[in-house]
Amino acid sequence: MSAAPAFVAVDWGTSAFRLWLMSADGAVIAERRSNEGLAAASAAGFASVLESHLAPLPGSDGLPVVICGMAGSRQGWIEAGYVEVPAELTSIASGGVRVPGTERNVTILPGMCVKSAREPDVMRGEETQLLGAMLESSGAERFCMPGTHSKWVQMRDGKVTGFQTYMTGELFSVICSASILKHSIPDGGSVDANEPEFLTGVRDGWLTPARFTHELFSIRAGQLLHDRLPTDNRARLSGLLVGVEFAGAGVGDDESVALVASGRMEQLYHAALVACGARVQTIDADTAVQRGLRQAWRILATETGGRLSA
Amino acid sequence: MSAAPAFVAVDWGTSAFRLWLMSADGAVIAERRSNEGLAAASAAGFASVLESHLAPLPGSDGLPVVICGMAGSRQGWIEAGYVEVPAELTSIASGGVRVPGTERNVTILPGMCVKSAREPDVMRGEETQLLGAMLESSGAERFCMPGTHSKWVQMRDGKVTGFQTYMTGELFSVICSASILKHSIPDGGSVDANEPEFLTGVRDGWLTPARFTHELFSIRAGQLLHDRLPTDNRARLSGLLVGVEFAGAGVGDDESVALVASGRMEQLYHAALVACGARVQTIDADTAVQRGLRQAWRILATETGGRLSA
Repeated sequence: MSAAPAFVAVDWGTSAFRLWLMSADGAVIAERRSNEGLAAASAAGFASVLESHLAPLPGSDGLPVVICGMAGSRQGWIEAGYVEVPAELTSIASGGVRVPGTERNVTILPGMCVKSAREPDVMRGEETQLLGAMLESSGAERFCMPGTHSKWVQMRDGKVTGFQTYMTGELFSVICSASILKHSIPDGGSVDANEPEFLTGVRDGWLTPARFTHELFSIRAGQLLHDRLPTDNRARLSGLLVGVEFAGAGVGDDESVALVASGRMEQLYHAALVACGARVQTIDADTAVQRGLRQAWRILATETGGRLSA
Repeated sequence: MSAAPAFVAVDWGTSAFRLWLMSADGAVIAERRSNEGLAAASAAGFASVLESHLAPLPGSDGLPVVICGMAGSRQGWIEAGYVEVPAELTSIASGGVRVPGTERNVTILPGMCVKSAREPDVMRGEETQLLGAMLESSGAERFCMPGTHSKWVQMRDGKVTGFQTYMTGELFSVICSASILKHSIPDGGSVDANEPEFLTGVRDGWLTPARFTHELFSIRAGQLLHDRLPTDNRARLSGLLVGVEFAGAGVGDDESVALVASGRMEQLYHAALVACGARVQTIDADTAVQRGLRQAWRILATETGGRLSA
């Protein structure tokens, strides 16, 4: 017997759209992925993009939809604001915003923010992933969520007490494509966790982060003076950036970190964290966002007396 | 009585060409500037670009030419290599390479390099500026030469003992134009040394360089949460990068720094260095490169028994 569809979970980001038709107990019945992120959906209309993905899915008629990610930003479908930390992580569910004028119940979850004047910060999408990750982790207090804008989150007893974003992935991308290092780094391809230059870069960035902007130029000089390989240069750049992120996050020996990541990103950060002496518990990022959306749906269904359940 | 032209000094960089017709005692008789940097000159031919600028200058016939900068790189007119540090700064003159096949005597000065496997580095053009700056400074041991690729040079008794390049200016440029911060920073315009956000950024970058990639994202978050002004964001970004450079260079209180810079760059770095407690002696960058080229010409003329003097 196959599970009955109960709700629709959507992770709607800047450049990607992912939808799962899910059972009440969190089984994935069907999946849809496309590149209809924020820009594409703004042009086509968010409702029509969503319905175009639901139309071919049997049993999705009238089901409630819970969305996280950039669809809730000011430039998104409807602005879903931010929950200010410190806050219970589950409060993102009750802070969900119902999209007006849609036939089915569509709720967009808010992001989270640090309002401090000194170091303001925002996340949108990761808070939902974190809600799922929290269910998977055994009381972890530090979460690392690597990516274009890596997040480090501090939690205690279900409450987010603070977080910081590091522009690691984006800096890697713009330095590779737009700086003088583009002459020293291959087009395309990606860094492998086993490359020695990656882990050397991690340690150098972690131990002497102040020298980061010098180390960047030194990659260029190393190519001119020592004919270093472009793939080694790329691995070192990636490692340096991850190491500087670790220095900023205060990664220290024998610390426990819950790593929310998948695929190659998981491999890179896992190897890097271990190299810096951390104990790592991995939580699959894709699973985490599904679990987080399901948890939000359950809370919303309870709060609305079950009306969210189809 | 006007001074007689004795030689031609050229600073030939990646994107700019600057030429001075000079007297033996270093007076500038005429100046030419254009955007015929490396790329343009490679296409048009270095010799013809040079002669096109000399043709209209009375008294330049047959004069020797001394060139510094990227014209001596592998992609330049003729490769002039690097003098490896530690080295006497004046050795860049004796390491000059005579361009073959030209009617007049054209010498391109080499760059300098740090060959260390750990932190290789190169400069090309700044060594000549430094040769001039050394003549202006009263025994300074630390030189700061800000720019796209800022150089920090350690000297002792006329010898360059080490140097480090920081990608400060280039990172500012690529982060402004190619990262998410482009939405938070105005197109065009420039940072003013009097903007409070600049000096706050300097101090934050200097005191906590490890948090640099987080501070970057925080600029974006500050705009979303606190409607911070684009001009303030730009000033803070610039300050953070300069501060991280200072942290890497180990700028500390009450240190003496010879700042080789002109115009707005001089104002920014002067204010930033003073804010970090350094004592600053400014040496005009344009004057420094002219003096350095003149000094190289004098050494070359002596070594060649005066044949370099027209």
